[in-house]
Amino acid sequence: MKKHNFSAGPCILPQEVMQKAASAVIELDDIGLSLIEISHRSKEFVDIMEQARSLALELLGLKDKGYQALFLHGGASMEFLMVAYNFLEKKAGYLNTGTWSDKAIKEARLFGEVVEVASSKDKNYNFIPKDYKIPGDLDYLHITSNNTIYGTQFKEIPKTDLPLICDMSSDIFSRQLDFSQFDLIYAGAQKNMGPAGVTLVVVKEDALGKVSRKIPSMMDYKVHIDKDSMFNTPPVFPVYTSMLTLQWLKDLGGIAAIKEVNEKKAQLLYSEIDLNPLFKGFAAKEDRSNMNATFTLADEKLKDTFDAMWKEAGINGLNGHRSVGGYRASMYNALSLESVGVLVDIMSDLERKA
Amino acid sequence: MKKHNFSAGPCILPQEVMQKAASAVIELDDIGLSLIEISHRSKEFVDIMEQARSLALELLGLKDKGYQALFLHGGASMEFLMVAYNFLEKKAGYLNTGTWSDKAIKEARLFGEVVEVASSKDKNYNFIPKDYKIPGDLDYLHITSNNTIYGTQFKEIPKTDLPLICDMSSDIFSRQLDFSQFDLIYAGAQKNMGPAGVTLVVVKEDALGKVSRKIPSMMDYKVHIDKDSMFNTPPVFPVYTSMLTLQWLKDLGGIAAIKEVNEKKAQLLYSEIDLNPLFKGFAAKEDRSNMNATFTLADEKLKDTFDAMWKEAGINGLNGHRSVGGYRASMYNALSLESVGVLVDIMSDLERKA
Repeated sequence: MKKHNFSAGPCILPQEVMQKAASAVIELDDIGLSLIEISHRSKEFVDIMEQARSLALELLGLKDKGYQALFLHGGASMEFLMVAYNFLEKKAGYLNTGTWSDKAIKEARLFGEVVEVASSKDKNYNFIPKDYKIPGDLDYLHITSNNTIYGTQFKEIPKTDLPLICDMSSDIFSRQLDFSQFDLIYAGAQKNMGPAGVTLVVVKEDALGKVSRKIPSMMDYKVHIDKDSMFNTPPVFPVYTSMLTLQWLKDLGGIAAIKEVNEKKAQLLYSEIDLNPLFKGFAAKEDRSNMNATFTLADEKLKDTFDAMWKEAGINGLNGHRSVGGYRASMYNALSLESVGVLVDIMSDLERKA
Repeated sequence: MKKHNFSAGPCILPQEVMQKAASAVIELDDIGLSLIEISHRSKEFVDIMEQARSLALELLGLKDKGYQALFLHGGASMEFLMVAYNFLEKKAGYLNTGTWSDKAIKEARLFGEVVEVASSKDKNYNFIPKDYKIPGDLDYLHITSNNTIYGTQFKEIPKTDLPLICDMSSDIFSRQLDFSQFDLIYAGAQKNMGPAGVTLVVVKEDALGKVSRKIPSMMDYKVHIDKDSMFNTPPVFPVYTSMLTLQWLKDLGGIAAIKEVNEKKAQLLYSEIDLNPLFKGFAAKEDRSNMNATFTLADEKLKDTFDAMWKEAGINGLNGHRSVGGYRASMYNALSLESVGVLVDIMSDLERKA
């Protein structure tokens, strides 16, 4: 049976990417060897890494604009630490919009003073703060553009003259933004880019080198830039599969094209949530994420029926995070409008049956 | 044509492991979803992680002996840093036996005093130091059990009452040792364990918690232990493929079985190096690595002929590292005795022709 994979991450990737990735594990491009058994210094892999870095900048519209793309180990959680290592001299500002912002703040506090410029923690992060003053003396302002667990998303990126750093793990490559407003963007691969095990960092080169501390090599963005993102052996398979996904997105028409699909998917699901009296949205309407829709049943007694219905339809990964409960439908780039249609039909069916 | 893969790492893995890994990228165990698109909190992946951790301890003979196995992001280079974060309070001792030891020393110096207890650097690391005194006031002693670039290997592990930490990246699971003499072992996966992108850390729990500094979460072994090696999303594919390789090794008879094959391969090649007047070994005989044999041509004029011969035979990855020159034949667990035979035959052929 065809699965409809709404998993929050690791999550659905394009079918053709998974086919090509699997094939490369057997043999890469007719070289007689597997992708995972060749040297990362081989011409084949150096080309893959360069292509991945180049595609990332191209898709974000940041080619030849003073930015570098790096594919690093560790996940976004490692970036919480690396950002502070490289940018936090005295005082940094963070917008606290969810669990991941909160963790980023915790790690940064080991390196200097951290100001929570605004927070929605007291409302269980169900909205994005809007009226706040950004202190002028910060080393940088850090935001989390999309909050996977709560289903909120910045529709307007804060305006500031400070260096702006963004954890874009769960909505990178999903919507058009002026990406040059950021000094650093980071994103764990496992939503819109590839399998878990690699993190994309896009950094404006002249924003670096402004802290006085000594930075360990693996934590130092400059070291990774100097070594063309190959300071140590990179996570070969995740990098390759990310490259394939970025190529897939480019062939599709890039962010401009996928953005339209993502808006349609989100509209379809949120209309159903709003019109169907059996469901309630969790996040404030104006802050709703196009990637992760969070919702609950108005009547918990329907839970067993609803759960049986979507499982029977081949839907996977719909359970909400324990911090919110209910349901979470993650609609990353590779999820089809058809899959969202299947979910919406089940929600309507439930209304008819109830 | 069949390839004989002597690559130094990433390197050859068992054929059946690559087949199974490729198949799981299409679909994992008939669940209708790919390994790389399911949640790392799914029962399927939690089981994979637990199996990998359990197999690692079992193969090393460290089950129920107070050790924990972790599969972390970052490669051995990240461990250079993590080891110092977790163990270096005042002063640590390192044996400098190659490029990787040297890098480990450099990173540790950011955290405290580092004593180079012994070094073979002035002889381009062609031997393992033997007569040295280990100071009694060190927080730990760090060694690199096998030196990939230079082709040397500790045949005797230093005796000490200090906590002993070992970078075993390039010979873990290849030979029998009393692994309980180590307080911490780390190893990048991409030699005997799996594809690049994950690092095995095996740590004695009661050796932790002895430094006073605050440790960032991602750097803290205790945090990773408390979260069953899932503090953040792990590198799913590298962990899965490592689990398959460990299972392959167990089915083969474990380290005791593979050790014999590895000794045969090494004997076969080193005999040829010693008996064939056209070749010279690089490393001191008593310190020769069973994993990486380094050698040069006695007469550089034969280089083009020899290179053409081994390439024609389907041999891959035989060029030496630039620090040593010549050739390096890496004979990790998955390389067959047959492949070593092919290389040795070519070396003999060259002697007949020359």
